[in-house]
Amino acid sequence: MRRNIYLDMKPPEEALALFLQHLSRKGFPGSENISVLDAVGRTTALPVHAILSSPHFHTAAMDGFAVMAESTFGAGPDRPITLRIGRDAWPVNTGRPLPTGTDAVIMIENVNFVDDETFEIEQGLVPWRHVRRVGEDFVASEMIIPSRHVVTPYEAGALIAAGVLSIEVVRKPKFLFIPTGSELVSPEVLRERPLEPGETLEFNTVILSGIVAQAGGEPVHHTIIPDEFEDIKDAIRKGVESDAHVVVVNAGSSAGSEDYTAAAIGELGEVLVHGVAMMPGKPTILGIVGDKPVIGNPGYPVSAVLSFEVFGLPLLGEMLGRPRQRRPTINAMVARKIPSKLGQEEFLRMKLGKVGDRVIAAPLPRGAGSITTLTRADGILRIPSSQEGVDQSSLVQVELLRNIAEIEHTLVIIGSHDLTLDILADELIERNVFLSSSNVGSLGGLLALKNRTSHMATSHLLDTETGVYNWSYIRRYIPDIPVKVIHGVRREQGFIVPKGNPKSVKDFHDLLRGDVTFINRQAGAGTRVLLDYHLQRLGLDAAEIKGYDTEEYTHTSVAVAVLSGVADVGMGVLAAARALDLDFVPVAVEQYDFVIPMEHMEDEKVLKLIDVVRSDRFKKRVNDLGGYGVEKTGEEIPAP
Amino acid sequence: MRRNIYLDMKPPEEALALFLQHLSRKGFPGSENISVLDAVGRTTALPVHAILSSPHFHTAAMDGFAVMAESTFGAGPDRPITLRIGRDAWPVNTGRPLPTGTDAVIMIENVNFVDDETFEIEQGLVPWRHVRRVGEDFVASEMIIPSRHVVTPYEAGALIAAGVLSIEVVRKPKFLFIPTGSELVSPEVLRERPLEPGETLEFNTVILSGIVAQAGGEPVHHTIIPDEFEDIKDAIRKGVESDAHVVVVNAGSSAGSEDYTAAAIGELGEVLVHGVAMMPGKPTILGIVGDKPVIGNPGYPVSAVLSFEVFGLPLLGEMLGRPRQRRPTINAMVARKIPSKLGQEEFLRMKLGKVGDRVIAAPLPRGAGSITTLTRADGILRIPSSQEGVDQSSLVQVELLRNIAEIEHTLVIIGSHDLTLDILADELIERNVFLSSSNVGSLGGLLALKNRTSHMATSHLLDTETGVYNWSYIRRYIPDIPVKVIHGVRREQGFIVPKGNPKSVKDFHDLLRGDVTFINRQAGAGTRVLLDYHLQRLGLDAAEIKGYDTEEYTHTSVAVAVLSGVADVGMGVLAAARALDLDFVPVAVEQYDFVIPMEHMEDEKVLKLIDVVRSDRFKKRVNDLGGYGVEKTGEEIPAP
Repeated sequence: MRRNIYLDMKPPEEALALFLQHLSRKGFPGSENISVLDAVGRTTALPVHAILSSPHFHTAAMDGFAVMAESTFGAGPDRPITLRIGRDAWPVNTGRPLPTGTDAVIMIENVNFVDDETFEIEQGLVPWRHVRRVGEDFVASEMIIPSRHVVTPYEAGALIAAGVLSIEVVRKPKFLFIPTGSELVSPEVLRERPLEPGETLEFNTVILSGIVAQAGGEPVHHTIIPDEFEDIKDAIRKGVESDAHVVVVNAGSSAGSEDYTAAAIGELGEVLVHGVAMMPGKPTILGIVGDKPVIGNPGYPVSAVLSFEVFGLPLLGEMLGRPRQRRPTINAMVARKIPSKLGQEEFLRMKLGKVGDRVIAAPLPRGAGSITTLTRADGILRIPSSQEGVDQSSLVQVELLRNIAEIEHTLVIIGSHDLTLDILADELIERNVFLSSSNVGSLGGLLALKNRTSHMATSHLLDTETGVYNWSYIRRYIPDIPVKVIHGVRREQGFIVPKGNPKSVKDFHDLLRGDVTFINRQAGAGTRVLLDYHLQRLGLDAAEIKGYDTEEYTHTSVAVAVLSGVADVGMGVLAAARALDLDFVPVAVEQYDFVIPMEHMEDEKVLKLIDVVRSDRFKKRVNDLGGYGVEKTGEEIPAP
Repeated sequence: MRRNIYLDMKPPEEALALFLQHLSRKGFPGSENISVLDAVGRTTALPVHAILSSPHFHTAAMDGFAVMAESTFGAGPDRPITLRIGRDAWPVNTGRPLPTGTDAVIMIENVNFVDDETFEIEQGLVPWRHVRRVGEDFVASEMIIPSRHVVTPYEAGALIAAGVLSIEVVRKPKFLFIPTGSELVSPEVLRERPLEPGETLEFNTVILSGIVAQAGGEPVHHTIIPDEFEDIKDAIRKGVESDAHVVVVNAGSSAGSEDYTAAAIGELGEVLVHGVAMMPGKPTILGIVGDKPVIGNPGYPVSAVLSFEVFGLPLLGEMLGRPRQRRPTINAMVARKIPSKLGQEEFLRMKLGKVGDRVIAAPLPRGAGSITTLTRADGILRIPSSQEGVDQSSLVQVELLRNIAEIEHTLVIIGSHDLTLDILADELIERNVFLSSSNVGSLGGLLALKNRTSHMATSHLLDTETGVYNWSYIRRYIPDIPVKVIHGVRREQGFIVPKGNPKSVKDFHDLLRGDVTFINRQAGAGTRVLLDYHLQRLGLDAAEIKGYDTEEYTHTSVAVAVLSGVADVGMGVLAAARALDLDFVPVAVEQYDFVIPMEHMEDEKVLKLIDVVRSDRFKKRVNDLGGYGVEKTGEEIPAP
């Protein structure tokens, strides 16, 4: 079994510097001459100078009459001066040229007509009053935009004003993406047939192409190459010989038995870097073949993207001659302690939200295979290699993936998971509010309120003695925080089982059977409280349940565990079972509510949420999910 | 003479609200189904749900061997467990499916081979270790992106991963731009012939189109319509009947004798707003014809852009179903007092720069005809209608036109103008530094250092007693600020006169002649100090110079004044005369320097500027301008 060995593990900055140093400008894109009408977003290859001055003639800046200023000298309220149209004054509109011999404009508002041909003025004018003189904005030969500059719409207009119809821009650097992997299939197969087990849809290329196009490059797609050394080598060689400026092989960059990328680059040219001290993104290869840079990009989508952003984008910038782009950053407080491994720079995807006057950052899961950790992220937190993570409540700088205004319009809910949160999110967008929800269970939600890291909690904690939801927990865990409770939904809880319920799970007693594997929710989840309550009520011993200690964090994950055969049964809501076409055995109806601190009750985002929750459209959409009751949805539940 | 009367002057927010209220959804673009590959940047019409789970099979998360976790239970350093390949363990690579019957992966690093067919392990595995389970990222039916959402590259990838190949997006709202104005000509005429006096190039459409395209709409251009009522009315009617969703008439929106837009809209439909209390942008018309919105946009380019951004962009957002986009803002300190008129919201274009730890904002000229006040702007400061301007050093919020990183890489020079500053700017960009230079004269530059609003001053102030430049002024005006002086250039100062020097201006005595009109520089400008010095030396009385009190702020403006016949002669540098093909009568050689506070001498941007100034390439480019000496350029000039 052949295995590559990483050459070494360079820090990302060092690896990038080495890579950029070795670039040959011979492989860089040249320039091309294009119409200014197509120039927005392109990068200038040379400074652009005005051909015409602007304005290019003396221009009336007001509607009125053009005059010789001298002919108005001495006019005053007590001694008006009379001017005759066609002899002393000529009508002129804004933007029109001054008649020869005139040097000022009287505003129409300041004219008192005597008759059709004469008028009086009561105020004299200095020369060039209300006139835009030749070259007032800029003069011929002046530099309008410098080189290495991305043309904006404003500038395209200024260039036309300057009489410049075409400019020299840098050709778009062409990035050839070669997807490799015997397990990969083109998404197009889905048009023909369903996916087979073991087949993975190739989608990294779509993401990387989008990134390149947005940054001013031109992506080109190669067909998928299987994990065969000669095929990969061949594709790289042809890519380098083509008109592409950069070749990106995705993936085969790791040290597995079928990772041929490094060896292929090595045989064709030089591998400068194999292995970078970053996480995700470690198995990155940076090489040169002929005059062209070749990147071996890791296979996990998040690794592929982050590695490409660290190495591919600066390369693109270098080719465009553009200064390095950095994302804007925001100062944020981390919601909880985040450990990180020494010796590698970690790139954490973060959710952000502004609670009170603090921006709160919470890490998303780390899995580099989970593309949703990028799509859901508001920002990236880089933890340096010298640091063993960050402590709860410490201040960090987060690179923004969305604009700050969007973060400021984000409502942060931390607490219990429910599928209606998706509907809430969708409805809130129409009201210009973005929803960030973290699923940590009901109790975790209350504790987040205590830490002031959310605008509200979602909770369904049953007081088994009184039968009242949430209030006793609120009093116990956050006694110092005055809150309102707004009723969300009633929902059916039950056993989620495979289609046809093969193990015939009917009640809580069945969970203790030797042939039944259970999947549990985490401690502090309302669903777990409900389970424990019923077990206790029936005198059943949780320790006898196989899988009681295996925990998932959402209803959906429980359903997935059942669907995939990890467990035979889990407890959750009907909607989760329905979504995955599983069967459902109802065992209880419970109450799911919003717990909102008084200090946020006037927050516009919170008010809009309440507005949505009380709307008929929301109730109808929830009802359509099945297993929900919305009779009292949106009502305030007073403390008992 | 027919004149329109503004209906009233609504505050912008009120005008917009009224406009959006009156929109008919019948005129809105519908949706269309497009490939996910084309979806980046488009807005979803509906929420998009996963068709496949991701992963859609249990997947190895590491390279190694797939096993039944149970078969590893109990392994330890002292009691290794032996596994046989093909019976207990199966080789597997990252991303590949787990063989049926296995539920965990042993990392290849943890395997000790006994022979080709067996290996030992010293550590047991829990079930599902190093396995990405079905649906771990997301499950079929889960919402991947909500409606009214702009698709990112990351999300395009996630959609493919979810088995979604095409999605429903909002059609691009089509904006028809109708340029009107008898003075307007298409830029294309420049390919045929030079511009004639009175002809204005139509370029507003290029800018507005770029803005619409960047915001997700589709711009369409109408040919230019002359200022004829029926023609304009006809074009609007046809536009409304076409497949355009919005018709924008630019301009004819004011109250001049040839401003027909309001009347035309009024005859075809309803004028909701004519006149908005904003500056620039006042003569804006908002109307409805049939089911379609019609905007009458002001003619000055800056007015056209700002008005369109206040009314056109929110309309586009409304049609896309997108929440209102707001530009990110930055807190800044205004460099000087800015007066503003009560009763109208003023939109000031600002230069921004970070000096020390403060962001400094300085207003650009107000002229709505000067497109460069937009192209040069880093941000927009809105002064509310209730406010009579802002005081010097007050804190304001500025809407950003560039990203913050760019502002932070901006070197702020305030002081005397010289044409070499353009070359400096162009050279600095390569070093990732952006130059912001404000021309306030040498003395103004020193006072800016005192106010700590710039990184350095440019100055050429001659001490007429000692013949030494700058130092005596530094001691007098900024005695408490330790500075270094770096020599910039030597340059020729002289009289800028029209081609052929028709008034035969040869020396300072000629400036006093009755037939000669002079154009002066502002008080505090080094060039004015030089003029005054020579007048005094020769015993000439400045009061006798016609035009002595007419002031311009740059060498170029002086040259423009001469070129356009405003004056017969002005004083300035050779390069300014050359740029406009004027004649030049040299009268003195002077020294132009950089004055840099010690506190900024370690600033990376300042170091890079010094680096550029000392480079051979910079010196050569300056030399090529003519009239400059660069023998000692870049040397430090010690205090005498």
